[in-house]
Amino acid sequence: MSAFTIEKKCAGTKARTGVLKTAHGNIKTPVFMPVATQGSVKTMSGEELRSMGVDLFVSNAYHLYLRPGEDVIRSAGGLHGFVSWDRGILTDSGGFQLYSLAGLRKIKSDGVHFQSHIDGSSHFFTPESVTGFQAAIGSDIIMCLDECVPYPATREYAEESMKLTLEWALRCRNKFEEIKGQEQGSRQLLFGIVQGSTYLDLRRESAARTVDTGFDGYALGGLSVGEPRENTFEIVREITPALPENSVRYAMGVGTPEELWECVENGIDIFDCVLPTRNGRNGQAITSQGKINIKNSEHKKDMSPLDDDCVCTVCKGYSRAYIHHLFHSGEILGMRLLSLHNVYFMLKSMDAMRRSIADGTFLQEKKKFLNK
Amino acid sequence: MSAFTIEKKCAGTKARTGVLKTAHGNIKTPVFMPVATQGSVKTMSGEELRSMGVDLFVSNAYHLYLRPGEDVIRSAGGLHGFVSWDRGILTDSGGFQLYSLAGLRKIKSDGVHFQSHIDGSSHFFTPESVTGFQAAIGSDIIMCLDECVPYPATREYAEESMKLTLEWALRCRNKFEEIKGQEQGSRQLLFGIVQGSTYLDLRRESAARTVDTGFDGYALGGLSVGEPRENTFEIVREITPALPENSVRYAMGVGTPEELWECVENGIDIFDCVLPTRNGRNGQAITSQGKINIKNSEHKKDMSPLDDDCVCTVCKGYSRAYIHHLFHSGEILGMRLLSLHNVYFMLKSMDAMRRSIADGTFLQEKKKFLNK
Repeated sequence: MSAFTIEKKCAGTKARTGVLKTAHGNIKTPVFMPVATQGSVKTMSGEELRSMGVDLFVSNAYHLYLRPGEDVIRSAGGLHGFVSWDRGILTDSGGFQLYSLAGLRKIKSDGVHFQSHIDGSSHFFTPESVTGFQAAIGSDIIMCLDECVPYPATREYAEESMKLTLEWALRCRNKFEEIKGQEQGSRQLLFGIVQGSTYLDLRRESAARTVDTGFDGYALGGLSVGEPRENTFEIVREITPALPENSVRYAMGVGTPEELWECVENGIDIFDCVLPTRNGRNGQAITSQGKINIKNSEHKKDMSPLDDDCVCTVCKGYSRAYIHHLFHSGEILGMRLLSLHNVYFMLKSMDAMRRSIADGTFLQEKKKFLNK
Repeated sequence: MSAFTIEKKCAGTKARTGVLKTAHGNIKTPVFMPVATQGSVKTMSGEELRSMGVDLFVSNAYHLYLRPGEDVIRSAGGLHGFVSWDRGILTDSGGFQLYSLAGLRKIKSDGVHFQSHIDGSSHFFTPESVTGFQAAIGSDIIMCLDECVPYPATREYAEESMKLTLEWALRCRNKFEEIKGQEQGSRQLLFGIVQGSTYLDLRRESAARTVDTGFDGYALGGLSVGEPRENTFEIVREITPALPENSVRYAMGVGTPEELWECVENGIDIFDCVLPTRNGRNGQAITSQGKINIKNSEHKKDMSPLDDDCVCTVCKGYSRAYIHHLFHSGEILGMRLLSLHNVYFMLKSMDAMRRSIADGTFLQEKKKFLNK
């Protein structure tokens, strides 16, 4: 039985709402996952995430493997116990980190040799070891080990890498089946990742063969790595139809609120992005009227909230002037407040999308959002 | 009518419980004030402070004067509106900051010339201007401008400085009376500050003459500036009896949990200290079993809470192992969690003191605390 059920389809677009069943609750889609790379959504507490309605966040196997490491997480009875989070957790395998740390890693057909960015120690990831690690720490959604190709990439490199990711996907799936065979009743899910850079024929081949291998969900990887936005949208538009209608679809690392509306219109169900927390820590607030930089002097005496249309605890409780002051005074509370507001903004955007898909007003709502 | 009412006295010691009426609520004493130097208790939100039962915090006139400045705070309708806090605020005048920034300031009999630590701009504080500033921003408890003498100090310097503080105290009081005369019904309070370094006769003279001038409450200043703890206790023990029994007494910058028990025993009602938040940011947790450094490797796999005897949200929700991980990963949440726990620990200590004074078990409770 599929873990994903479509509930409502948009008549005029490919948008849909659905429910993804995980071992830690049912996730309503489309869903935005805040990023907890090291097991903490930066500056935020679990209580804050829960009270805002976060049902799923993304953490990172590469980081957790290096620190605190599998033995510590196992002593806590798994990742959920370790980070005190009883809702869903998706773990990325580390493909993106291995790409970010290009100077330190060497990709071979059997796996990736890399040096820890923390202490320089040598490690070797294989598709089997990374799948095993994610399963062992109790991730609800396990991502296959992939190679995330930088932009721009030559066709030769993109093709070779895409094929390596396909080989690894099969090995991940086999390892996952082996684990599932041992642990009856496990409700962990495994997602495959489509690569192929900006070459649509490579993407199509990757999609078709990843689907042939067979996964609980499908991700578009190698997006938001510096490619023009039009390329991102083209890939989403052209490749999503090559993924099974009834499987859940995840656009990794995407994106801005505008990109989320566009991708949902094209049938994407899951997103993650560091934007709300990273921008929050840098003084940028996402509002219904666009971005504002709270550090700018125009906010010095502005007693209005970050966003007049927002009812988050920050907008209900604090003025722009105060948050401006916190940033200029180097107070951590400033980063907290903007991160919280920004994550709330993303969650409310997803609420609006789900509601408007259910109502049959998705395109009108999208237009309304973009006009602001 | 006095703003302070004693409710219960300890039979065997000078400890007492009481209520201090302010324009923003009644404060139960003895009370510990978390420090919000720049209008934010570092890493913590107002909601967190409120839900822990904080009724009063201390902010700093020197810092607020320089940033955001009086005009910004006035635009927000005062400091309470600016920082979104509807309970009590005491503002220190800046005497301690002027002492900390010794290289930048020049004390004259009419006031203090100093350069901003932010942009080097020149400023001049007088007893009148600092009192006027604190009144204008709506502080509930205004502190006189004083000179905080470093330790050790020569007798000559300590005496000269103490006399200057006395002159300034009179000028502050006169300015305050003038403001009160203009603003009928104002419930702002003005506290005088006893100086005199570690010279008990100077302290006695300072206390007597400060009391002669007459204030709503009396503070012991120039403590916790590096003097041996025995000196701190001696000053508290010897000088508190020179302050009016029915006035509220404040030991500025004090202290550790042990010091609080000792000072309460000797009749002190109000405390403030950066310890819980500063130590929290540095990885130190205050627990009923003593201090622990969460960064130490012994906590790496320790799934127990910071303090088995504590019921704060941190101890209920998170393990030492996770907080250890947060600190080693540079996650801000680690600083948040320790700050919150530490402030809670101080508040609960004050609860225990108030309860045991009311019960007549103060000395037993003190012994129990110190034995741990």
